[in-house]
Amino acid sequence: MSQFSTSNFKLGIICGGQLGRMLGLAAANWDITTYVLDATENCPSSKSCDVHVLGHHMDYDAVYNFGKKVDMLTFEIEHVNMEALRKLKSEGLKIFPDPELLAIIQDKGIQKQFYAEHKIPTSPFDLYDSKEGILEALNSGQISFPFVQKSRAAGYDGKGVAVIQSAEDLHKLMDTPSMVEDAVAIDKELSVIVARNERGETKCYPIVDMVFNHEANLVDYLLCPADVSQNIELQCQEIALKIAEQLDLVGLLAVELFLDKKGNVLVNECAPRTHNSGHHTIESNYTSQFEQQLRAIMNYPLGDTTIKTPAVMVNLIGEDHYKGPVYYEGFEEVLRISGAHPHIYGKRETKPFRKMGHITVLGSTVEEAVSKAKMIKKTIKVIST
Amino acid sequence: MSQFSTSNFKLGIICGGQLGRMLGLAAANWDITTYVLDATENCPSSKSCDVHVLGHHMDYDAVYNFGKKVDMLTFEIEHVNMEALRKLKSEGLKIFPDPELLAIIQDKGIQKQFYAEHKIPTSPFDLYDSKEGILEALNSGQISFPFVQKSRAAGYDGKGVAVIQSAEDLHKLMDTPSMVEDAVAIDKELSVIVARNERGETKCYPIVDMVFNHEANLVDYLLCPADVSQNIELQCQEIALKIAEQLDLVGLLAVELFLDKKGNVLVNECAPRTHNSGHHTIESNYTSQFEQQLRAIMNYPLGDTTIKTPAVMVNLIGEDHYKGPVYYEGFEEVLRISGAHPHIYGKRETKPFRKMGHITVLGSTVEEAVSKAKMIKKTIKVIST
Repeated sequence: MSQFSTSNFKLGIICGGQLGRMLGLAAANWDITTYVLDATENCPSSKSCDVHVLGHHMDYDAVYNFGKKVDMLTFEIEHVNMEALRKLKSEGLKIFPDPELLAIIQDKGIQKQFYAEHKIPTSPFDLYDSKEGILEALNSGQISFPFVQKSRAAGYDGKGVAVIQSAEDLHKLMDTPSMVEDAVAIDKELSVIVARNERGETKCYPIVDMVFNHEANLVDYLLCPADVSQNIELQCQEIALKIAEQLDLVGLLAVELFLDKKGNVLVNECAPRTHNSGHHTIESNYTSQFEQQLRAIMNYPLGDTTIKTPAVMVNLIGEDHYKGPVYYEGFEEVLRISGAHPHIYGKRETKPFRKMGHITVLGSTVEEAVSKAKMIKKTIKVIST
Repeated sequence: MSQFSTSNFKLGIICGGQLGRMLGLAAANWDITTYVLDATENCPSSKSCDVHVLGHHMDYDAVYNFGKKVDMLTFEIEHVNMEALRKLKSEGLKIFPDPELLAIIQDKGIQKQFYAEHKIPTSPFDLYDSKEGILEALNSGQISFPFVQKSRAAGYDGKGVAVIQSAEDLHKLMDTPSMVEDAVAIDKELSVIVARNERGETKCYPIVDMVFNHEANLVDYLLCPADVSQNIELQCQEIALKIAEQLDLVGLLAVELFLDKKGNVLVNECAPRTHNSGHHTIESNYTSQFEQQLRAIMNYPLGDTTIKTPAVMVNLIGEDHYKGPVYYEGFEEVLRISGAHPHIYGKRETKPFRKMGHITVLGSTVEEAVSKAKMIKKTIKVIST
């Protein structure tokens, strides 16, 4: 008789940011022992997980040795040393999602090729080795403004992305292997999270509408349920399910999509993990995305994703021009707003546009939640002391 | 600029059972540093709190020294060394609820006298020093069957309580200072949790209906919203608010009440802390009782207590005849039930009737949640390996 709960079972989580932290809190609820690998002392997960192992996720030895300590491995980031993961897998360690799935997602070029091969709608693209190649393609008319360049290797929270509207933006071009795609005339940016377990059971969350702060290139707030037709919602969920099946996913996959101005749904990109666009599920859905990840990787039945209450999620982002020990100005005032739930990630230092926490606010309607969210955004500021 | 969140602020919690554990998880969400005092290694809170100090809650030195390490003190149990609390308070430590409030609640005789003095409806009672005194009162006709004897000093989870239906039960009488009250002809056992902060702001939770397992003398399951008239709900909430005001409460107070067969509402007893009858609030209310306790003791605005979804809570209690390393038989099957959320407290050993965890199950109606709860009770068994 073995089980994950109240046992010596050890779940390893690679990287200990806010996603690992909230996964650790969900695991604590089932009394699962969690190990986290992170190179930073006092990383957000260091408090919520049982054992913090210091080490870098891109370092072969750190990842390999960490894997040898645990019974199952998952991650909160897709950039992990692949060689170590493959070696661990070959030695029998359960790793979810699978390293080969990570290999597809890690490289934004291969990710796009995967969509093309599997006839998953996405904007037209080409791969380039250097800045020079892109400039040549522009000159020859193969690329036209506006377009988006994404570095193939890097990319998290908008890093490694250049939006080129016109010749004036060409100085932003990165001189690195990259994927260049047509800029989409965006009506809405949507997200859907899908879970799949080893038995192939799947569950989709209701789709969310992500409203962007274009200055920080981060989600400003997101709302759920999204104001789109049932037809669009179904299209998004079908696409997410198809990707999950084609990738043979075990775990969660967050699929970011564009609804363009002509009403087409196009995949932007995927992340095989819990996601910023699923934080509201802690309060607003029957099953949070963090519990769902546990269910999926442990091959348990997947949880109901029904919405309990409409919700808006506001990221708490470090104010521009502030750097140093963090202070949440207006924290108490926010608690006066009915249904507002702050989540503080425990990062000691703020810096411009750093994700320091989030606030989920519930309402009996989305409109009510949006109006509270706007009040919250005016009330709280992440500054330094 | 000072704040509780992401600071060096240390919250001390006396006793590290499941209530302390879930309070620790709520505090983690706001990045509050938690210290717990508990005499048991691997107590349920030891994983969710930041620092576990080994020591007994009734030991003067343990409590006093623990208090000196923290910036604010609260507890998950009402039986704490009073002398140490008073000394700490005199030295300026913030202790919520106040030690003098604990002194009233700790002694079931004084607690009853408090209700009588403040005209709070409760069943008629008398105090006795010994078993002999009770037998004399029976002989003289001052007491009549059925009645309930409660030890003045002890009492948690039905311990220290003797229900005397007839002369045949007289062997159950405890020879200790006790409070004897008329047995109430119970229609329903209800509970209401009230929160109050230092500014005197108050919030009541919707009342819950507690269905008892009389063999174990523990709640079998509870449901919310309770099936009572609005008038009864208001009466319960008014009583709870009145007690909270009269006690000058800062924190939470769980008020257990009887609805008798004539439709009268009578207070059974109170606990100045989070309570088993509030566990469902984690999933089913805008604000959980654990977050509410933090808000109350930190003098923050109190959270909205509105119900998001009807819920039933089932205690996971050690099966009779099993003692040893715990195994949750049927855990996976329970996860198949939509809206079922297990909370495992992390106690390594089960024993008959020990509270090992709970499962909250949500439904679109109470009836649906009750029928799922009945299925859960048939599915899961807490046994030993």
